Amino acid sequence: MTQMEAARQGRITDEVRAVAQAEGLEPEAVATSLARGRVVIPVNPGRRLDRPCGIGEGLSVKVNANLGTSALASDPQSELEKLEAVLAAGADTVMDLSTGGDLAALRRQVLAHCGRPVGTVPIYQAALEATASGGAVADMTGEWLLEVIEQHAVDGVDFVTVHAGVTREGVELARKRRTGIVSRGGSLLACWMAARGEENPLLVQFDRLLAIARRYDLTLSLGDGLRPGCLADATDAAQLHELGVLGELVTRCRQAGVQAMVEGPGHLPLDQVAANVTMQKSICDGAPFYVLGPLVTDVAPGYDHITSAIGGAVAAMAGADFLCYVTPAEHLALPTTQEAVAGVVAARIAAHAADLVRRPQAQAWDDRMADARRRLDWEEQLALALDPEAARQIHARHRHSPAGGCSMCGDLCVFRLNPPPEGPS
Amino acid sequence: MTQMEAARQGRITDEVRAVAQAEGLEPEAVATSLARGRVVIPVNPGRRLDRPCGIGEGLSVKVNANLGTSALASDPQSELEKLEAVLAAGADTVMDLSTGGDLAALRRQVLAHCGRPVGTVPIYQAALEATASGGAVADMTGEWLLEVIEQHAVDGVDFVTVHAGVTREGVELARKRRTGIVSRGGSLLACWMAARGEENPLLVQFDRLLAIARRYDLTLSLGDGLRPGCLADATDAAQLHELGVLGELVTRCRQAGVQAMVEGPGHLPLDQVAANVTMQKSICDGAPFYVLGPLVTDVAPGYDHITSAIGGAVAAMAGADFLCYVTPAEHLALPTTQEAVAGVVAARIAAHAADLVRRPQAQAWDDRMADARRRLDWEEQLALALDPEAARQIHARHRHSPAGGCSMCGDLCVFRLNPPPEGPS
Repeated sequence: MTQMEAARQGRITDEVRAVAQAEGLEPEAVATSLARGRVVIPVNPGRRLDRPCGIGEGLSVKVNANLGTSALASDPQSELEKLEAVLAAGADTVMDLSTGGDLAALRRQVLAHCGRPVGTVPIYQAALEATASGGAVADMTGEWLLEVIEQHAVDGVDFVTVHAGVTREGVELARKRRTGIVSRGGSLLACWMAARGEENPLLVQFDRLLAIARRYDLTLSLGDGLRPGCLADATDAAQLHELGVLGELVTRCRQAGVQAMVEGPGHLPLDQVAANVTMQKSICDGAPFYVLGPLVTDVAPGYDHITSAIGGAVAAMAGADFLCYVTPAEHLALPTTQEAVAGVVAARIAAHAADLVRRPQAQAWDDRMADARRRLDWEEQLALALDPEAARQIHARHRHSPAGGCSMCGDLCVFRLNPPPEGPS
Repeated sequence: MTQMEAARQGRITDEVRAVAQAEGLEPEAVATSLARGRVVIPVNPGRRLDRPCGIGEGLSVKVNANLGTSALASDPQSELEKLEAVLAAGADTVMDLSTGGDLAALRRQVLAHCGRPVGTVPIYQAALEATASGGAVADMTGEWLLEVIEQHAVDGVDFVTVHAGVTREGVELARKRRTGIVSRGGSLLACWMAARGEENPLLVQFDRLLAIARRYDLTLSLGDGLRPGCLADATDAAQLHELGVLGELVTRCRQAGVQAMVEGPGHLPLDQVAANVTMQKSICDGAPFYVLGPLVTDVAPGYDHITSAIGGAVAAMAGADFLCYVTPAEHLALPTTQEAVAGVVAARIAAHAADLVRRPQAQAWDDRMADARRRLDWEEQLALALDPEAARQIHARHRHSPAGGCSMCGDLCVFRLNPPPEGPS
């Protein structure tokens, strides 16, 4: 039985209870949203998570960190180090997007070392195996793609991205674009469809996919294979066409008792971010929305954790539930561990900025920080910091006044010039 | 004659011409906004700027970088290095906020080495001189404060922050706050007013201040001495009271032919950012709005360049014209040169994200980047990057595929799987 089916029968699972406790909600409230498909709790029944994660309506905004090798950078050890670092930095979930080396071995290692939900994109493995011995992407059979998905579920994967909304019509619409198709999964499928003259195998076989997902309670993350790759392509006909298909697939997932969320852009001008969330929530009947970015400009490679923190905060304020981190290395290279941590921190800032608007209780953390600042209690300020170590390093670098001022203002400290009365803490 | 008076007489100054050219506008359009007080061009008639800067309605969003010593970190050489670095990083203006060492000497050095507008906060010097030999802040006379302001103008300063909107009533309202008054200028004035039982000397002597400002075409940046220092204090009665006073002062500046802009928060929850801009623009009749942040959470010391890039982008999209950078060291220490550069870059990202919404022509840069990505033209991508050196360092660190792919995707490169047709470039 899937988490969704259990909720529909009024059963409170251990995971629902854990999520409710973490969010300060009644388990029944979480179960109600889960039953309606407005919350997902991605957890493979074959695994026991240290920290189950609820994503969707009424819950705090969650952050995903991507890991994974590529053909040109395939050191599994460094990916496992990255895993440890992103968990320590506070990622709620991780995705293993490896495309180099022994994919199955690394995936199993990631699952073994990660007590939070793990997601994958199985088409990478299916396509790489099809092309490994000189074949073409089109040699990948639909059958094989489903087998790989099932293999990931058997390994214990909690959620998978499936780009089932990429249709031949959508691909045709994307031809007019400045940067075409920039999702790897979407691109592989477009390549396959063009070579074989057939419709997307994930869409054609969606009922078989649902049967696998139901059997393993594999949460489907309905990928946006046609997400815009630059501002010029944002919110275009190809993107909207795919969103329409994803809306239908959400309905089919819910009918099958399968948990589903929907992925979204991508690159968007800042004034289109909220509109995209509103549109997704309407067309997909409130399904949890998982955004990659959105990046609000194309011109800042090296700083796309910042361009996406801007877009992610606005998206999450408008209703997006789940932010995929973007690292400073985006568009340039695989991230180092340090860059991965920078990505997690930036996405957590965006998520918390939105939580402050979505959930009144979120401000208690900020209020404690404000009180510590008023009292010039440096230890408390550093302990409360979202990244205490980073704050401590900057603070420790400078001389401070014996009276408690810092190197910013020296003795011209506002809290000593006019000590505020003890606030409402 | 001030820039504003010249514009009112239909004269096109060299600075108006330079600003119009940089913005791709007709000089007459810039002069019209300048005459109405909706654009300022801060430039001391005693200086010749390499790059004059227009701030306000219809113009691109500008970025200020703060420099300056404190009593605990007062090495002028390191501040001059910082100056060079923030100019190279693209700051449009700089403010020297020094409070340690020989203030006048450093200010003159900054003016000598900076071909862009320079701003100061003269009350720091006036208060420090009053307290230098054991005196109290209240020993500073209003007369002396005006003399120091004039001295800054004589030195060549282009704009000064004056916290003339802090009234005894506003200070009283701020007593209910969690963190009280967090602006140093506002705090000094509150301290002075409490000790002497008198009204703000800048407000009382505002006509004399206007006479000085008019004589030297010193642009007044009407400081927000009561800006909120934490989310809990955002958009409160004290802040709104001060904004009302600033609106009146804007009218008086315009009547006197004095250029004026208005400073704004501060710490604000994300959903209050746009409202604050709308409010300021309405109450101050479209005066240029200069925001510090806004920081959208209190909990991320070490990353306040990111918390403020989120708030700054949203503020500028809503109409804010000028973003004061915030560095990763904010709330912790004086920034290093590297942190100052990080602050400039983050603020420039926020400014550009807003420009993309405010000015259609801004997207040409992003379109060129998108085209370079589609063509896998790495040299062009790096050259177009907002911070080319940072992008190059990340890109160079990794092995790349001979066919042009990068370490992110290796051979699974979307632009090689489905080469997009040549776009509209």
